[in-house]
Amino acid sequence: MGVVGLAVMGSNLARNLASREGNTVAVFNRSREKTDHLLQAHPEAGFVAAFSYEEFAAALTTPRTAIIMVKAGRGTDAVIDELVRVFEPGDIIVDGGNALFSDTIRREKAVRETGINFVGMGVSGGEEGALLGPSLMPGGSDESWVTLGPILRSIAAIAEGEPCVTHVGRDGAGHFVKMIHNGIEYADMQLIAEAYDLIRRGTGKSPAEIADVFAEWNRGELESYLIEITAEVLRQSDAATGRPLVDVIVDQAGAKGTGAWTVQTALDLGVPVSGIAEAVFARSLSSHPEQRAAAAGLPGPAEDAVGTSVTDPDAFIEQVRLALYASKIVAYSQGFDAIRAGAAQYGWQIDLGAVSRIWRGGCIIRAQFLNRIADAYADAADLSVLLSAPYFVEALGRAQDSWRSIVATAATAGIPAPAFSSSLAYYDGLRAPRLPAALIQGQRDFFGAHTYRRIDQDGTFHTLWSGDRSETAAEDTH
Amino acid sequence: MGVVGLAVMGSNLARNLASREGNTVAVFNRSREKTDHLLQAHPEAGFVAAFSYEEFAAALTTPRTAIIMVKAGRGTDAVIDELVRVFEPGDIIVDGGNALFSDTIRREKAVRETGINFVGMGVSGGEEGALLGPSLMPGGSDESWVTLGPILRSIAAIAEGEPCVTHVGRDGAGHFVKMIHNGIEYADMQLIAEAYDLIRRGTGKSPAEIADVFAEWNRGELESYLIEITAEVLRQSDAATGRPLVDVIVDQAGAKGTGAWTVQTALDLGVPVSGIAEAVFARSLSSHPEQRAAAAGLPGPAEDAVGTSVTDPDAFIEQVRLALYASKIVAYSQGFDAIRAGAAQYGWQIDLGAVSRIWRGGCIIRAQFLNRIADAYADAADLSVLLSAPYFVEALGRAQDSWRSIVATAATAGIPAPAFSSSLAYYDGLRAPRLPAALIQGQRDFFGAHTYRRIDQDGTFHTLWSGDRSETAAEDTH
Repeated sequence: MGVVGLAVMGSNLARNLASREGNTVAVFNRSREKTDHLLQAHPEAGFVAAFSYEEFAAALTTPRTAIIMVKAGRGTDAVIDELVRVFEPGDIIVDGGNALFSDTIRREKAVRETGINFVGMGVSGGEEGALLGPSLMPGGSDESWVTLGPILRSIAAIAEGEPCVTHVGRDGAGHFVKMIHNGIEYADMQLIAEAYDLIRRGTGKSPAEIADVFAEWNRGELESYLIEITAEVLRQSDAATGRPLVDVIVDQAGAKGTGAWTVQTALDLGVPVSGIAEAVFARSLSSHPEQRAAAAGLPGPAEDAVGTSVTDPDAFIEQVRLALYASKIVAYSQGFDAIRAGAAQYGWQIDLGAVSRIWRGGCIIRAQFLNRIADAYADAADLSVLLSAPYFVEALGRAQDSWRSIVATAATAGIPAPAFSSSLAYYDGLRAPRLPAALIQGQRDFFGAHTYRRIDQDGTFHTLWSGDRSETAAEDTH
Repeated sequence: MGVVGLAVMGSNLARNLASREGNTVAVFNRSREKTDHLLQAHPEAGFVAAFSYEEFAAALTTPRTAIIMVKAGRGTDAVIDELVRVFEPGDIIVDGGNALFSDTIRREKAVRETGINFVGMGVSGGEEGALLGPSLMPGGSDESWVTLGPILRSIAAIAEGEPCVTHVGRDGAGHFVKMIHNGIEYADMQLIAEAYDLIRRGTGKSPAEIADVFAEWNRGELESYLIEITAEVLRQSDAATGRPLVDVIVDQAGAKGTGAWTVQTALDLGVPVSGIAEAVFARSLSSHPEQRAAAAGLPGPAEDAVGTSVTDPDAFIEQVRLALYASKIVAYSQGFDAIRAGAAQYGWQIDLGAVSRIWRGGCIIRAQFLNRIADAYADAADLSVLLSAPYFVEALGRAQDSWRSIVATAATAGIPAPAFSSSLAYYDGLRAPRLPAALIQGQRDFFGAHTYRRIDQDGTFHTLWSGDRSETAAEDTH
């Protein structure tokens, strides 16, 4: 097999492939320097270097399998064009970049017409994951999975004995699921950041002390890679100043766009992913220093309400932990809801339980917690919304008083907790017997004759608001 | 001048045009029935009916001006193609539909090559506004504005003596601003719905009693069309059952897509429009009855926390009013932030004060409040974020204790208030001296070597997390 694109992710994935019994890996990069560098640095890998697409194709046994690892965008199309030129029907082109799933659908369709298989594959786990075992989310045809499956299983992370790879679904399904993975990652990170901020401002503990809190949490139901590395980051001391590193880092969070894609896609699908949206917005808010400077004088609470309300720091920290867990359940529930809706929209057969299992290893959001999601879908594959599964109902019931208390404290004390509070509002909205959406329908009928439905009759209706205010049966034409 | 497309909006706009001194209006519709119907129903208008595009063009004096009022989408392209075929250089085609601004940019560019002017124009105010005076948001070239300006000023709503129309900016600027108008409308309606729900569940008042509250609010700083019609809707009794109509309407809110467009566009622009997003998501949440049924058993607060905490209903209602006002300031501030960012992105010169003034009449979000926004931009046209203007700082300072109390009460009592709480979290985030975004940057550097900046040095840095944990200067290549 072969790898095109030898930046860090591509090089590491190639080394991972080469490290497996019996594999010889052909490598190609647009500029020769990276290829030379890789061969010199890793003679043990036994790479076969190619310096043209023709050489690359010749170096592969048929059916050829090539994984593209270049920056997503037009560069991907250029590489695909070249591979289509030198490959033959039955060969397989895998795009392992972070492509937008709709691009993957388009590419798969175009490449399929040549008889070549095209597989868009999500690769999670960063540089280390690529080298030692990533979580892999391939889409594409069933036919290509027959060939690809054994290869991918051999290089994927292993979680509880299972390789972290599954054939997610056809064409763009793999990249779609990878996008949602990243959206969930945004929410998870924002929730952790809010928990840290609340503990710090609520109890006055230092980052190193809060690192101990996260390390402790990592031994319980919150056990996860992100909680683990949060402890590591908070414990880090800046050598130059002696201060906690987290206090030296500029508090403006960057973003690569997959979080925004998740929200944009969910809006098209009509799926409320409010926790993910708040996480994306929190990053963009942080990255407007000129606005933050202009708003610095906005008034806060009259007194330091946290200082006066947190009388028992340990109890407060436990409340934050439960609020974090409950909010995390909501974030994952919303993410899986988006996958369910995407599968319905695009005709993919996605096994949601299998998705949760392949995220248990290799990737950034790997967590014990994913076993609970797998269990939920094993019990009821057609679950309409994840948080209604019995385990989560119990967990949310156990957490909710603390969750409510923490959101109320944040509001009162002036500590921003957009993802905590949004998740709670979603929870209370979903379980509400009646929502004020009925009033919104009334308003829409008033100003735009958009009509409404009645709880006691079929059909749509319109009140003659500008007339005698009687009700008429209406066709829903607006 | 002429109108193409004679559904209700088009017919009403044509009647509005024809009602002005000296105007003769040519009308055309794809199917002849609508044209015949309009002529028979409104002989007083003196319409000139056309039954082909050739007749339509011949009926207009040059430079010809035609307003297209058809459902946004491919139909618009088809009509434009026909008009381009029969029109001449210097003529003006106006699209008054709810087109996506990027479509308008594309169409303007294509039509301009023929020498014909193309103007995308937002029209707000619904059927009644179209007839009696809408708020008009035209984009397009300066040249076309010379001809169009007098016509549009004559048919627009009048607010405080000024016609509600301005040349927003080139190409897609008008439709962009109309999109944001609609996004703000979503937020405003959701905030009102939350206020109603809180008062109802918090005080046990009936919809008719709450109608009185809104009618009272409409005499103060919240005075607006949406508050006014909310009172009307809440006061409406259902003839069939004798119950309040709002209790008979199915509580699932519909949406036409412009709210989602606003959020999707803001995500591209990096502008946090969290209040608008929560409003859009609240509608989509309401419209998943199967999920709501599955979640109906999720546990709520142990006791009815509102019933026990609201001891003084009048004081509670005043707190809700202040929370609504503060949240509304945030929603408008976020909306104007999106316009500011859109103008910078697309090279439009948009006068934000003028935009606020043309929304004072004709459109759904018309409100006294918009004068405060106009004042703010008159004082400082380059305001980086609206809520930092002195008037709003004062208003938010006055409201914030109540706002915090209401968000805390909602969380504690299990009443969903996603837009109230999201707006408060945005407010507290924007004014925070330090945000936990620094921790997120630390996490991103840990798992993805995404690098971070330091508060005390220029450049980007990376900690060797997998190595000796020293810090290295880094190029921001990730």
